[in-house]
Amino acid sequence: MSTAERPKYKVIGTRPIRHDGVDKVTGRAKYGADTHMAGMLHAAMLRSPHAHARITRIDTSKAEALPGVRAVVTSKDLPYHGDRVVELGEGAVNMKHLSANVLAHDKVLYKGHAIAGVAADNIHIAEQAVKLIEVDYELLPPVLDVLAAMQPDAPILNDDVRTEIPGGKAPDPSALPSNIAKQFLFERGDVDAAFDQAAVVVEREFRTATVHQGYIEPHNATVFWNADGKVTVWMSTQGTFTARQQTAELLRIPVSDVKVVPMEIGGGFGGKISVYLPPVAAALSKKTGRPVKLIMDRAAVFEATGPTPGSYMKVKLGADKTGKLVAGEAWLAFEAGAYPGSPIGPGCMCVFACYDVPNGRVEGFDVCVNKPRSNAYRAPGSTHVAFATETLVDEICEQLKLDPAEFRLMNAAKEGTRRVDGPVYSRIGMVETVEAIRDSEHYRSPLSGLNYGRGIASGFWFNAGLKSSVTATVNPNGTVSLIEGSSDIGGSRAGIAMQLAETLGIGAEDVNPQVADTDSVGYTDVTGGSRVTFATGIAAIEAARDIQRQMIQRCAVLWNVPADQLQFVDGGVVGAGKCVPFKELAAELHEAGGPIVGNGTSSTANQAGAFGTHCVDVEVDIETGKVQILRYTVAQDVGTAIHPSYVEGQLQGGAVQGIGWALNEEYWYDDKGSMRNATYLDYRIPTCYDVPMIDTILVEVPDPNHPYGVRGVGEVPICPPPAAIANAIYAATGVRMHQLPMSPPRLMAAILEKQAEQ
Amino acid sequence: MSTAERPKYKVIGTRPIRHDGVDKVTGRAKYGADTHMAGMLHAAMLRSPHAHARITRIDTSKAEALPGVRAVVTSKDLPYHGDRVVELGEGAVNMKHLSANVLAHDKVLYKGHAIAGVAADNIHIAEQAVKLIEVDYELLPPVLDVLAAMQPDAPILNDDVRTEIPGGKAPDPSALPSNIAKQFLFERGDVDAAFDQAAVVVEREFRTATVHQGYIEPHNATVFWNADGKVTVWMSTQGTFTARQQTAELLRIPVSDVKVVPMEIGGGFGGKISVYLPPVAAALSKKTGRPVKLIMDRAAVFEATGPTPGSYMKVKLGADKTGKLVAGEAWLAFEAGAYPGSPIGPGCMCVFACYDVPNGRVEGFDVCVNKPRSNAYRAPGSTHVAFATETLVDEICEQLKLDPAEFRLMNAAKEGTRRVDGPVYSRIGMVETVEAIRDSEHYRSPLSGLNYGRGIASGFWFNAGLKSSVTATVNPNGTVSLIEGSSDIGGSRAGIAMQLAETLGIGAEDVNPQVADTDSVGYTDVTGGSRVTFATGIAAIEAARDIQRQMIQRCAVLWNVPADQLQFVDGGVVGAGKCVPFKELAAELHEAGGPIVGNGTSSTANQAGAFGTHCVDVEVDIETGKVQILRYTVAQDVGTAIHPSYVEGQLQGGAVQGIGWALNEEYWYDDKGSMRNATYLDYRIPTCYDVPMIDTILVEVPDPNHPYGVRGVGEVPICPPPAAIANAIYAATGVRMHQLPMSPPRLMAAILEKQAEQ
Repeated sequence: MSTAERPKYKVIGTRPIRHDGVDKVTGRAKYGADTHMAGMLHAAMLRSPHAHARITRIDTSKAEALPGVRAVVTSKDLPYHGDRVVELGEGAVNMKHLSANVLAHDKVLYKGHAIAGVAADNIHIAEQAVKLIEVDYELLPPVLDVLAAMQPDAPILNDDVRTEIPGGKAPDPSALPSNIAKQFLFERGDVDAAFDQAAVVVEREFRTATVHQGYIEPHNATVFWNADGKVTVWMSTQGTFTARQQTAELLRIPVSDVKVVPMEIGGGFGGKISVYLPPVAAALSKKTGRPVKLIMDRAAVFEATGPTPGSYMKVKLGADKTGKLVAGEAWLAFEAGAYPGSPIGPGCMCVFACYDVPNGRVEGFDVCVNKPRSNAYRAPGSTHVAFATETLVDEICEQLKLDPAEFRLMNAAKEGTRRVDGPVYSRIGMVETVEAIRDSEHYRSPLSGLNYGRGIASGFWFNAGLKSSVTATVNPNGTVSLIEGSSDIGGSRAGIAMQLAETLGIGAEDVNPQVADTDSVGYTDVTGGSRVTFATGIAAIEAARDIQRQMIQRCAVLWNVPADQLQFVDGGVVGAGKCVPFKELAAELHEAGGPIVGNGTSSTANQAGAFGTHCVDVEVDIETGKVQILRYTVAQDVGTAIHPSYVEGQLQGGAVQGIGWALNEEYWYDDKGSMRNATYLDYRIPTCYDVPMIDTILVEVPDPNHPYGVRGVGEVPICPPPAAIANAIYAATGVRMHQLPMSPPRLMAAILEKQAEQ
Repeated sequence: MSTAERPKYKVIGTRPIRHDGVDKVTGRAKYGADTHMAGMLHAAMLRSPHAHARITRIDTSKAEALPGVRAVVTSKDLPYHGDRVVELGEGAVNMKHLSANVLAHDKVLYKGHAIAGVAADNIHIAEQAVKLIEVDYELLPPVLDVLAAMQPDAPILNDDVRTEIPGGKAPDPSALPSNIAKQFLFERGDVDAAFDQAAVVVEREFRTATVHQGYIEPHNATVFWNADGKVTVWMSTQGTFTARQQTAELLRIPVSDVKVVPMEIGGGFGGKISVYLPPVAAALSKKTGRPVKLIMDRAAVFEATGPTPGSYMKVKLGADKTGKLVAGEAWLAFEAGAYPGSPIGPGCMCVFACYDVPNGRVEGFDVCVNKPRSNAYRAPGSTHVAFATETLVDEICEQLKLDPAEFRLMNAAKEGTRRVDGPVYSRIGMVETVEAIRDSEHYRSPLSGLNYGRGIASGFWFNAGLKSSVTATVNPNGTVSLIEGSSDIGGSRAGIAMQLAETLGIGAEDVNPQVADTDSVGYTDVTGGSRVTFATGIAAIEAARDIQRQMIQRCAVLWNVPADQLQFVDGGVVGAGKCVPFKELAAELHEAGGPIVGNGTSSTANQAGAFGTHCVDVEVDIETGKVQILRYTVAQDVGTAIHPSYVEGQLQGGAVQGIGWALNEEYWYDDKGSMRNATYLDYRIPTCYDVPMIDTILVEVPDPNHPYGVRGVGEVPICPPPAAIANAIYAATGVRMHQLPMSPPRLMAAILEKQAEQ
C-alpha cells in the first residue's frame, strides 16, 4: 500500500514504550511461579518412567505417611468423565482424554505421563514423597512413529478411539480400536487428470521431528479451593477463560465457581492453552483446605506438555511448461501423541494455501503414538506442510529454470482464489510479499562463495476471530483505564491500547491497559490463532465508540442541542459551534453526569489470513554439516502494523523458531520411548550466536474487515524458514533435504551420500 | 407500607448468605495488613510527643546510619502545596493542611502528629531508627477546648486560617489568623418573635466528648512506586478513588498514575476516607525502589486519625401550649482538631431536621484545637445535635405533660416540610418510625422498678448520591460477575448483587460480586453518606438493564422480529410467541453474537434521607452511677430493605455505637494535651456484656427516587441513643444530663448534686 492510500493515523504506526515494559525489565512483573500466599503448600508430581504400560496398582500409603505430606491425589480424585466432548473455543476436546492426560487413568501412554500429585509443607518433602508412591506396571510395547502406529498390528494406545472419517460422521461403533483418530479429505477439481496433463510433476516424502515451543517459563498453577466451593487459579496461560472452562469441566463444577487470575506469561506459542496442573493442584487444595502451588521442571515441560507433532508427509505438485501449477496432492500423517488432537486439520488446509491450485487432493491422518499429547505451536501444522510444498516448488523452478520469485508471483493466491479446502480469499497480500522479496536489496544482491546458497519460501496462516471483551473507564484527567481479557504474550497490551487511543484521539501513553481475571472482564477467547490484535482490537474500538456515543449524548444535554448535530471527530466532540477535545470533556462530563465507562465486545468469523515470504543465505560447512545463517529477510503482509516494533519482533521471533526447527530441534527418543534430551543443554534451540539480525519488510495490505486494517501477524513467520533453508542448502551443496531437522549429522550423511553417488 | 402495596420481589427482602461470608469466617479474607511482597520494607513513624510546638530542627542522620534502615522521609519529601483546595467528592480539602497532617511541616498541632517515616528491613529496625531521629521543639501552649480556642487571646494553631463567613464569601485577608475556620448561619422565619409568643421555651447548654470510630483494623498502606512512575497502593479504605485522588494530589502526580487496590476493610465508619499513610509509604518507596508497608498501632489510630469532634452546643426550643413547636435556635461549636474540617455543616443541618420548625436560627463554628483533625464518624454531627434537641423535646413534653411519642407525631417532619437550612423533604418516614415505637410492645409494656426509666429519641441522616460505576459480565452458564467500585464495609456486595439479581430475574447466589481496584472499574465515590446501597444499587440496576437491552437486541436478530416486539419480563425475553429465561439466553447468546457485558453508572443528587426513633429502658445504679441498658428497640425508616439481616445489623451496630457515646467513650486529655487512654483497655467501647439484644423494627417507606425504593440506612441509628438514654436516666433518677458521656463518675456527681439540692 502506498503512503498516499494509507489513512493518516496519529497513534497507529508509532512505536511508544510498552505499558508493561518497566515491570518486565526491572524484574517486577509477576509470573506464575511468583505466586505466594499464607499457608501455601508445595506440590510435586509422580510421572511415568514408561512410555506405554497398564497401571495395575498404586499405593500411596507410604507417601501419605511421610511427615509434612498433606495430601496425595491420583485420577481417582478427579470426577469420572464419560466420553463427553466439550467445545473449548479453540476446538472440541474429549474430557475423558483431557482428564487422563492430567492424571493417568488405567494406562500411561508416554514417559512423563502424570500419575499422582503430592502436596507437602515444602517442595523437598513433596519430591521425596513422590518417590515413596508404589506403582505396579504391566509394560506394553511403545509405538513412537506415525507410520508404524498406523499399521493394523500396531500396539493400540486408546481402546476407545475409533477412526473418525471425513464428513463429520461418527466412527463405526463396531470398528476395531485404532491409533488413527481422525481422517481428513479435501478435494477440488480433477486431480488425476490434471497430473496426467502436467509438464512437470514432482513427488517427495518428508518427515519432521517432534519439536517443543521452548517457552522459558515452565507451566505453573497455584490453586485455592475455598470452603464455599469457589476455586481460584493463579497461573500463566494463553487463555484465562479457556483455562477456567477446562478446569471447571475436569472438576465438574460450574465455570462461574472457578476464577483464573492471569500471571505474566513467559512464552506460550500455543503450548499454554491446554491445562495440565490446575485440576491436580485444585484436588490437592480441596483435600487440604490450603492453597497449593505446582510448578513443572524443565524435563516435565518437555516430556509431558504439548509439543508440535512429528509428521510424515508425501506431497506432489504438477505444473504446466510455463510453470503454472495445475495440480497438488498431499498425504499427511501427524503424530497426535497419547490422545487424539494433532493439528492435522490446519495442516491439510495450509498445504497449498499460498497458491492457486485448481486441482487438489489432501488427505490427513491424526495418529496416536506414545509421545506426549501434541498441541498447538505457532501456526500449528503449517510449518510442516510449508517445508514440503515449498521444497517441491523449488524443485519445479529448478526443472523449469524459473526464478522462484517469479514462479510464486505467477501462482500466488490472491483475492478470489479458492483454496483446496474450500474458502475463497478476500483481500490478501501473498503477491505483495513475494514482490517485496523480489525487489529487496537482499534478493537482488549477488551471493558468491564456496558452499554458499540462497533460498526463498513462502508460508500462510489464518487470522482467527472468536470472542473478546474490553471495558474502558475514563478517568477525570482524560486518561483511560483499559481492562482486557486477552493474555499478553507479545505486546498486545500496547497494540490494543493504541487502537483505543487512536479511536479516542488520545496518546497511547494516556491509556492504561491491564489484563484482568475471569471475574473482572467479559468473556475472551485464547490468545492464539493470531487473533488478539485483530479481535480484541475490534472490541477496544467498540469500547471507544461507546465512550464517543456517551460523550456526544452528554454534550447534547449540556449544550442543549440535538445529539445528531454533534460528532466525535479529531479527538473531541464537535458541533453547535463548539469543539471540545477529549481531555477537557473527560473532566467536565465526569462532574456533569457521572462516570463514563465504555464496553466493547467482538465475535467474528475467521479472516482471510496472512502470508510471508522469506529469503535466506546460508553457508554449509561440508566437513561437519553445520549450516550457518548468513543473512535472513522476512517479508510479510502484516495488514496495518499497529506497533511496528512488535510486528517486527514477531517476524524475527517466528523466523528464529523456524530456524530452530530447520537446523536443530527434535525430541530424541530411545527405543523404549524415553526422551533422551529433555534439557536445554541437549535440546538445542537457537541462541543469538546462531542467527544474524533478522531483517524485516512490513508489507501493509490492510484487512478490510478491521476498522484499521489489522491482520494477525504472529504465526506466519515460523512457516517458511525450514523450506527456505532447505532450498538454500540445496543451492549451496546440491543436496535436497526432506527431513527435519537438517542437523549436522543428518546433513553430513546426506552430503556424504551424494559425494558417494558422484 | 402495607404488604398489599409492596411490589412482589423475588430476591429483594430475602436473606441469602453473603458472598464474602466464607472468606470472612474462615480467616481467608485479606485485610490491609495481609499484604506481602518480595523485597518489601517495613516502615514506622515518628510522632510528636507534644500537643503544640514549633519544629526548629530535625536531624535524621543517626537514623539513616542505622544498619538496615533504607530511607527516612519528612515533610521535605512531599511536594510543596500552596493553598490549593481540592474537591474530593465528599467535600473540599485544603491540600496544604492535608499534607501537613500527613507529615508535619513547621509545627506539630497534636500529640501523635506524624513527623517522619522510616523504612527498614524489618519493623524492629524501623522502630529503633525512629528513636534516633532528633527533633528540637519550641513548645507552645496547647488549646484543647472549643470555647477556649474561640477566645481572642487563644493560642493560634494555623497562621493561614482566617474565619470563612457564611454565604461562601472568602475570608477578609486583612483579618487576623483565628482558630475559627468557618462560620455557618441558617435562618428561617422570625425566630425572636416566635420565641416571644411561645408558651414554653427551654434552653440548655450541652457538651459532647471526642469519640473515636473504634474500628478494629488499624490504618494501613503498602505502596510500591514503580520505576515508570506508577504508584500502586494496597490499603483498606472507604473509597479507593478518593484515596487515589488524595494520594495523587499529595504526591502531585496524575491520578491515573496511582492505582489503589482495595483490601478488605475491618471497619471504617467514616474514619477511613482521609489518607494518612499512603503518601508517606509512597515517598519511602520512591526513595528505596521497593514496596513499603506501613501499619498504625492502636495508639496512633487514637491519637492521629480522625475522631468525631468534641462540641459545645447551646440549643433552645419553643412550643405553643398544645405542644406545637414554634421556634428553634442553636449555637453550635465543633472542634475541628488541628486543621479545619469538623462536620459542623451537617450538624447545623440536622439539629432540627426531625421536626417542622417554622422559625429557626442555627449558627455553627468550626474551631481548631490541639487534637487530631476530626473526621467523619457515622452521621457526622447529627449525633451531637440529636443529643441536644431530643433532650429539650423531652423537657418540653415533661412541662406540657405530653406523651413524647404523641409530641413527635404532632411535630414530625414529613413530605413537604421545609428544613431550617432550606430543603423541602420529599417522601420520608419520620412519622412512621414514631408510630412504630408508639405501637411497639416495648413502648406499651409497663416498666416499673426502683431507678428504672424509659426514654425515647429520634434522629436523622442524609442519603448521599454521588457517583458509582458497575460492570456486569454474563457467564455462559447464566451467572453474572459483578465488578463494583464501592468498598464493602457492611455487606454491600450482597445488597448490590441482589439488586442486579432482582432486575435480571436470577438468584442472588448467581451473582458473583467483587470490589475492583481503581484501574478495573469506573469511577466510584466513597462508601459513606449512606449512599452505596442506594447509588451503587442504581448503577447495578442500570447495568442489568443494559444486559436486558442487549439480550433483546440479540434475540430480535436471532428470532427475526423487531426489537420493539420483545420485552424483558419475569427474568427472560418474552415476545414473538417465545419466552426464554435468562440462563438459557446466556448460553445461547454467548455463542450467537459473543460476550454480553453490561455497564451502569449513577450520578445522583442527595436524597431525602432517613429517620429513626429509639426506645430504651435503663436501670441506674445510684450508688455508682452505672447505667445498665435493660431493653432497646430501634425503629427506622429503611426504605425497601434489600437484605433485612444487614439492615438489622446496621441498626444494631449503630445503636451500640450510640450507646458507647452515651455512656462511656471519650478521649481523656491531660493539661498538656496528651491523650491518657489511647488503648482499648482504657478507652471503653461497649462489649456484648454491656448491651442487650437490640430489637429492630424495619419501617419500609420506599424512596421514590430509587427503582426499588432503597434508602440509606447505616448512619441514622447512631443518632438517637445518647438522648434516648439521657431521657431514660431522667425518668429513672430525675437527673437531666447535658454532657456526654454520661459515665459513672459524671452521672454519680450529678446524682449527688441533685441529692444535695433536695
